[in-house]
Amino acid sequence: MREGEIFFPNEPVIEVSGPIIECQIAETFLINQINLESMLATKAARVVDAAAGKQVVDFASRRTHGLDAGIKFARVSYIAGFDGTSNVRAASLYEIPAVGTMAHSYISTFDSETDAFSNYAKSFPDSSTFLVDTYDTLNGVRNAIKVAHDMTTHGSSLRAIRLDSGDMARLSVHAREMLDHAGLGNVRILASSGLDEYSISDLVSSGAPIDGFGVGTRVGTSADAPYTDFVYKLVEYDGTPIVKLSEDKESLPAPKQVYRISDTEGMFERDVITDVDNPICNSNSSPILSQVMENGRTINESPHVNAIRRHHRERLEGLPPDLRGPTPNGTIL
Amino acid sequence: MREGEIFFPNEPVIEVSGPIIECQIAETFLINQINLESMLATKAARVVDAAAGKQVVDFASRRTHGLDAGIKFARVSYIAGFDGTSNVRAASLYEIPAVGTMAHSYISTFDSETDAFSNYAKSFPDSSTFLVDTYDTLNGVRNAIKVAHDMTTHGSSLRAIRLDSGDMARLSVHAREMLDHAGLGNVRILASSGLDEYSISDLVSSGAPIDGFGVGTRVGTSADAPYTDFVYKLVEYDGTPIVKLSEDKESLPAPKQVYRISDTEGMFERDVITDVDNPICNSNSSPILSQVMENGRTINESPHVNAIRRHHRERLEGLPPDLRGPTPNGTIL
Repeated sequence: MREGEIFFPNEPVIEVSGPIIECQIAETFLINQINLESMLATKAARVVDAAAGKQVVDFASRRTHGLDAGIKFARVSYIAGFDGTSNVRAASLYEIPAVGTMAHSYISTFDSETDAFSNYAKSFPDSSTFLVDTYDTLNGVRNAIKVAHDMTTHGSSLRAIRLDSGDMARLSVHAREMLDHAGLGNVRILASSGLDEYSISDLVSSGAPIDGFGVGTRVGTSADAPYTDFVYKLVEYDGTPIVKLSEDKESLPAPKQVYRISDTEGMFERDVITDVDNPICNSNSSPILSQVMENGRTINESPHVNAIRRHHRERLEGLPPDLRGPTPNGTIL
Repeated sequence: MREGEIFFPNEPVIEVSGPIIECQIAETFLINQINLESMLATKAARVVDAAAGKQVVDFASRRTHGLDAGIKFARVSYIAGFDGTSNVRAASLYEIPAVGTMAHSYISTFDSETDAFSNYAKSFPDSSTFLVDTYDTLNGVRNAIKVAHDMTTHGSSLRAIRLDSGDMARLSVHAREMLDHAGLGNVRILASSGLDEYSISDLVSSGAPIDGFGVGTRVGTSADAPYTDFVYKLVEYDGTPIVKLSEDKESLPAPKQVYRISDTEGMFERDVITDVDNPICNSNSSPILSQVMENGRTINESPHVNAIRRHHRERLEGLPPDLRGPTPNGTIL
């Protein structure tokens, strides 16, 4: 890490002090957790940016590296701006909205797709999303329309359909036309299946009439960048600054503070890492490290995910646009 | 999945039967766990192949997707042929050899590298591995040689040195020459830092005098292939075979058995997936699915990791060489 580098979205430096044997025992745990959650949160924030205001929900638990990683992804993706998770354990633990639609296997147990939709609508008269691709997507849309009309006569309404295979851009245009033509302009179209920030950005740019995205495997495993290089270095021992000078790995000595420098419009310009004893004192810089533990215990209770989510949103807005992941003009962080 | 496809190293089909709501609840858990462990085991088996008989140990826990994934990687990499793990929790849980060397931070706390090595040798007189790259690798080797000579005069001996940065091929040649010249031909050279089956295969092909490898991030996250596409499909409901025909996703109906077909020399030729009611009965085919649970409980105790490790080795030897990961001639699965 060198002066002037910008890190996002997590503060780049944490500091641990204590008897060296205790600090050593904490090393693997701390690197592991900070690496995983920072990486997943960053990936999720990029997806939220790519979705450009459309709904995004977490369907990743089937393919995350273990269920613990699935629960962590549900939490950090909600913090990063997702609208909900299909992981009911995480939803319950952190008070995140639980979301989901029917499974293909649900539909397969009925004699016809129409029977499946009708039956599902009885359980969820005003919050049904019909999965339309079990047999043939556009025929599935026709069946959804039939059942949606029945629902209307019973005073309820279909909320959405979900596309889960095929060419999403093409199918969503057809489905939208069919729904609109049938007087179902309020029925939303959701898409899932192998999506990440790149494919979502392409779909949004193409103008595909998709109202929300379910993301899973590629995002929950951070497939194109499945690790980061957070490290844990001894920087001071018994009051003496320590440096490591390996051929291709270097560390900066001494305990540090990180200052985030803003420009005159309040946008973040850069982060500066300094010796903790040389504070930067001016109005456009603020320190971003604060103490969270003392004597092995947390000082304050962890804020509710909704508070962390708001904090993330505020901080993200200060980040220069060219550092944010795929935008309609194709800029990639 | 189609007849004739070969899958490795895990059997491709598992079958779950039960009340549909219970099968549905098991879906995410089963896909998640089978995906993760199969992927990590495959990656580890490729590393073992690439190492061509040299020692490989697991240093991945810092960067796996959570500590649960780290413990699972320690277990399955040992099953796949690794020689040990630095994850002491996994070592204790599964009776896997615990391995490790000193940390850079250990060395940094002493006034000199030589002091650090000497002190470490007092604790581990016959099992020390000195990490030589904290300041300058070849100077670190010189310091290791000095201390190794002191150890000899005290009746103990240095086991190995570890290179953890820089050009491993070049540095290992220099280090080997220096050690041999100093009469320390028995001191082994270990390498770590960003290794995977590709770089290990290159090092082995180059003839680098490295005796063992510590692998971490790239292998423990399966970085170039961080997920697989295991799926969970309804194939029979209430006695009726079920099929799903999405545009780009298909499933085969009915419960299945998988037969592994061998050629006349006992090498695996292919796997054939059949309807469970149409068994293949001939001497060169054997069914590879067997029941492991009944009424929600396992039927037999899980074998010890050493037994699973032997089984894996035996099965792997039946696999055609062109299906095995990077070999000196560059064939990649």
